[in-house]
Amino acid sequence: MQTKKIFLSESEIPRQWYNVAADMPTPMEPPLHPGTGQPAGPEDFAPIFPMPLLEQEMSQDRFIDIPEAVLEKYLIWRPTPLYRAYDLEKHLDTPAKIYFKNEGVSPAGSHKPNTALAQAYYNKISGTKRLTTETGAGQWGSALSMCCKLFDLECKVYMVKVSYNQKPYRRMMMQTWGAECVPSPSSETAAGRKILEQNPDSPGSLGIAISEAVEAAVQDETTKYSLGSVLNHVLLHQTINGLECQKQLAQTGDYPDVVIGCAGGGSNFAGLAFPFVRDKINGKDIDVIAVEPTSCPTMTRGPFAYDFGDTVQMTPLIAMNTLGHSFVPEPIHAGGLRYHGISPLVSQLLLDNLIRAEAIPQLETFEAGVKFARTEGFISAPETDHAVAVAIREAVKAKEEGKEKVILFNWSGHGLVDMAAYEAYFAGRLQDHALHEDEIQRALADIAPLPKPKQYTGA
Amino acid sequence: MQTKKIFLSESEIPRQWYNVAADMPTPMEPPLHPGTGQPAGPEDFAPIFPMPLLEQEMSQDRFIDIPEAVLEKYLIWRPTPLYRAYDLEKHLDTPAKIYFKNEGVSPAGSHKPNTALAQAYYNKISGTKRLTTETGAGQWGSALSMCCKLFDLECKVYMVKVSYNQKPYRRMMMQTWGAECVPSPSSETAAGRKILEQNPDSPGSLGIAISEAVEAAVQDETTKYSLGSVLNHVLLHQTINGLECQKQLAQTGDYPDVVIGCAGGGSNFAGLAFPFVRDKINGKDIDVIAVEPTSCPTMTRGPFAYDFGDTVQMTPLIAMNTLGHSFVPEPIHAGGLRYHGISPLVSQLLLDNLIRAEAIPQLETFEAGVKFARTEGFISAPETDHAVAVAIREAVKAKEEGKEKVILFNWSGHGLVDMAAYEAYFAGRLQDHALHEDEIQRALADIAPLPKPKQYTGA
Repeated sequence: MQTKKIFLSESEIPRQWYNVAADMPTPMEPPLHPGTGQPAGPEDFAPIFPMPLLEQEMSQDRFIDIPEAVLEKYLIWRPTPLYRAYDLEKHLDTPAKIYFKNEGVSPAGSHKPNTALAQAYYNKISGTKRLTTETGAGQWGSALSMCCKLFDLECKVYMVKVSYNQKPYRRMMMQTWGAECVPSPSSETAAGRKILEQNPDSPGSLGIAISEAVEAAVQDETTKYSLGSVLNHVLLHQTINGLECQKQLAQTGDYPDVVIGCAGGGSNFAGLAFPFVRDKINGKDIDVIAVEPTSCPTMTRGPFAYDFGDTVQMTPLIAMNTLGHSFVPEPIHAGGLRYHGISPLVSQLLLDNLIRAEAIPQLETFEAGVKFARTEGFISAPETDHAVAVAIREAVKAKEEGKEKVILFNWSGHGLVDMAAYEAYFAGRLQDHALHEDEIQRALADIAPLPKPKQYTGA
Repeated sequence: MQTKKIFLSESEIPRQWYNVAADMPTPMEPPLHPGTGQPAGPEDFAPIFPMPLLEQEMSQDRFIDIPEAVLEKYLIWRPTPLYRAYDLEKHLDTPAKIYFKNEGVSPAGSHKPNTALAQAYYNKISGTKRLTTETGAGQWGSALSMCCKLFDLECKVYMVKVSYNQKPYRRMMMQTWGAECVPSPSSETAAGRKILEQNPDSPGSLGIAISEAVEAAVQDETTKYSLGSVLNHVLLHQTINGLECQKQLAQTGDYPDVVIGCAGGGSNFAGLAFPFVRDKINGKDIDVIAVEPTSCPTMTRGPFAYDFGDTVQMTPLIAMNTLGHSFVPEPIHAGGLRYHGISPLVSQLLLDNLIRAEAIPQLETFEAGVKFARTEGFISAPETDHAVAVAIREAVKAKEEGKEKVILFNWSGHGLVDMAAYEAYFAGRLQDHALHEDEIQRALADIAPLPKPKQYTGA
C-alpha cells in the first residue's frame, strides 16, 4: 500500500516561525505615514496593534520562537497532513508527483487560524481585552472568533452586510465561538453612520468594514485591531505550514520543483512558499507560483507602488503591487482573492523574480475543483481551487514535456461552507472576468508607481 | 507539551473489520419475510444488495478482511486522530480524562464514508453499475455520492423534499461528487407518483424516499440499493474506527471506563463501541452508552419487537427496539437520530445489558456543543452533540464522585453544514420534546413486542 498522507508527530511540530525578511536580497520599502509621507514607525501603529506584533512586523530575525501557549493550541489541528494526490495524477495521466498540504483540518476549515491564534495570544499577554476585525465572506472572522475564545478575549467582527445576509453560515460559526458579529456599515461607529446617512441600504464593503473595526479599536485602550493577511507578522505566523511541509517532504525523499499557493492578501501562499523561497535564495531551482484570479490581477497587472491598504485611505502607504485602492473587482466566488493589493513581502519577492504570479479565469478554477473532488475526495474552497488549477496546469505541462516533476500546492481550505459557488458553477451562472486595459488604467489613476523600485538581479 | 492528538501511521491501519455477532452471548433473531413470516435468507435480499454484502450481513466470522482497494481509499481520511480534550476537562474542572475520536476529517465531514466506501467497492466488484439510496439532511447521501465516484459507480439519491429545499449544501456536495440527487417524492417511481397524486405538495419523508430508492434498484439488474445504517454489514464497516481507537489508546496507557456514541440507526455508535463491547464480554468493566434524543427514545422507551425497517412496510421484519414504523418524531435538528428503530445488533446488546442507552433533551445537546466548540475549537454536528452531552454528564459525575475516570466518545462529524441549527438555538427557537406515554402507546399500537426475547444474563 502506497503512503497517501505524511504526518508529523506532535513532537516534531516546528518551534519557530520563519521570517523571509532576513533572507531577502532587496530590503523592504518602509511603510509611509499617510499625512507626512515619512517612514512610519511602531509608534504610528501602537494604537491598533500590540507591541510584540509590531516587533515582529519590523523584525529582521530569521527565526522567531513560537510561544509554548501558542504551540499548545496549534495542536488542535497542527501538524496538518501532507497528501500525495495519486488519484489526481492517475486521472491526468501525468508523470508528475502532486503533493498538497491539507490546511482544511482546522476547526474553521482553513489556514486562517495559524495567525489568528498567534495574534490572540500576543494581544492577551499585552493586556488587550477585545479584538476587532473586518470580514468579507467570514473565513477570517470565524478563525479569529475561535482563537479569541481559546485565549479568553472578546471579539467583535464587522461583516460586510451583503455577505452577512447572503452567507450566514460563517456568521453563525462566529456566534457559536462567542464573538459578536455585526453587519457593516453599522450605526455603532462614526464611519458606519456616515455611510448609512448617505445610503441606508448600503451593501457595505471590506473597506468600510476595515474603517469600522479600526475606529472601534482606537477608541479604547484595551481594544486592538487584527488583520488576517497582507502584513509581515501575519505571513510570518503562516510559515509554520511550509516548515512542517519541508520536514514531511524530507520523509519522502522528494523535493518540489514547483510550489503553488493562491494569493489574495498573500498569507496562505507565503505560509507554504516562504521556507522554499529561502532554499531558492540559497541556490535551489524551484518555480514558486502565486495564483490570482484574472478578475483581480494584482500581481500580474498591477504596478509596484505606494498605496493605501484600504479603500478609505486610513492606513499607512505601503509599497506593494496594487490595482489602486479604489479598484473594485467583480463579485467572483473566491471572495478571499478580491483584494486590490498584495502583501509587501510577496510584492518585493515578485519584483526580485524569486517568485512569479499566474492569473486564472474563474471557470477553470471550478473545473479544477470538481476534478479534484472527484479524484481526491475533498471539496476545496473557491480560493483554493485557484491553486488546484495551476497544479493541474503544471501536471499537464509535465506530461507534455515528459518530465517527472514534483508539484506541491497549498490546499488552504475546504469549501463545505461555500457550496453555493459550486451550485452556481454547475448551473452555468458563472463567467470569466478578464479586465480590459482601460479598466486597469482607470483604477491606477489615483496612485503613482514607484519610479525606480529596488530590484534584485541575482536570482 | 502534552500530547493532544494520538495518530496512527498509515501502516498501522486495521486490516480487518470486527464482527460483534461472533462474540454475542445471545444469537440474533433472524429477519422475517414480511409475506410469509418465515426467516428471510440471502435470496430475499439479492435483488437489492450484492452477494458479498449479504454474506457479511449473515456472517459469524469474528474478523473480516478489508480489501486492499478499500484500505487504499480509506487512507484519504483514515486513520483518524484520537484527541484528548484537555481544555474541556479544565473547563469542567473534572478529574476525568476525556478522549474523542475525530471522524470529522473525512471529505464528507462525518463517519458515514467508512461504510459508503466499502459498499461502493463490493457493488463495483459484483457488477453493479449504479447505486440508489435515500437521504434526509444529506449526510449519508453525500458520503455515498463521494464513494461511488471514487469507485466509478453512478449514484442516485432520493432526498426528502423538505430537506432538499431547506438544506441545500449537502445536495450541492452530492452534485459536486457527480451524483444525481432528486427531491422525493419524485415522479420517477410508482411510489413517488402515488404520493404526488394524493398530495402534490408532499414534503416527503425518509420512508417515502426509501420506497423510491428500493423501487429504482429492483427494476434494473445492474442497479442496487445502499443503506447507511441499521444493517449488520453497515455496522461492521464502521468498526474500523473502534479498532483504530484501541491501538491509539494503547499508546497512552489509558483504557476507557466509559464509551459513548450517539445512535440513530446505530452505526457510528457501533463503530466505536463494538470492539470495546468485545472486551466487556471478555471481562472488562466498561460502561458503554448509546445516546438518543428524548424526542425519539427508541432505545429507552421502545420495546424489543419485530417491526418493519421503513414506514411503508416494504422491508423484512427485523427484531429491534422500535417505536413502531409509523412513529414520526418531532423535527429536531439532529435529523440523523430521528429513526423509529435501531440496529438489531445494538438492540440485542441492550437486551443483554452489555450496553445501555441514555436519552438527552435537545437544549442540553446544543449547550454541550457550544461548550465543546468554545474549549476544544470544533463545532459538532447536532447528532454528535448528543455524545458530547453525555461525555460532559459523565465528566461532571466523575468530579462529584472524585473519580479519575477515562471517558471516550465518538465525535462523529462536524457541524459546519448544520449551522442553522446553532442559530436557531441561540435565537431561542429550539425546544425540548419529551414524549408523553400516550404518544408512545399510540405509536406502538401496530407492532407486537416479542413476548420472550432471548436474553443473556451473564453480564
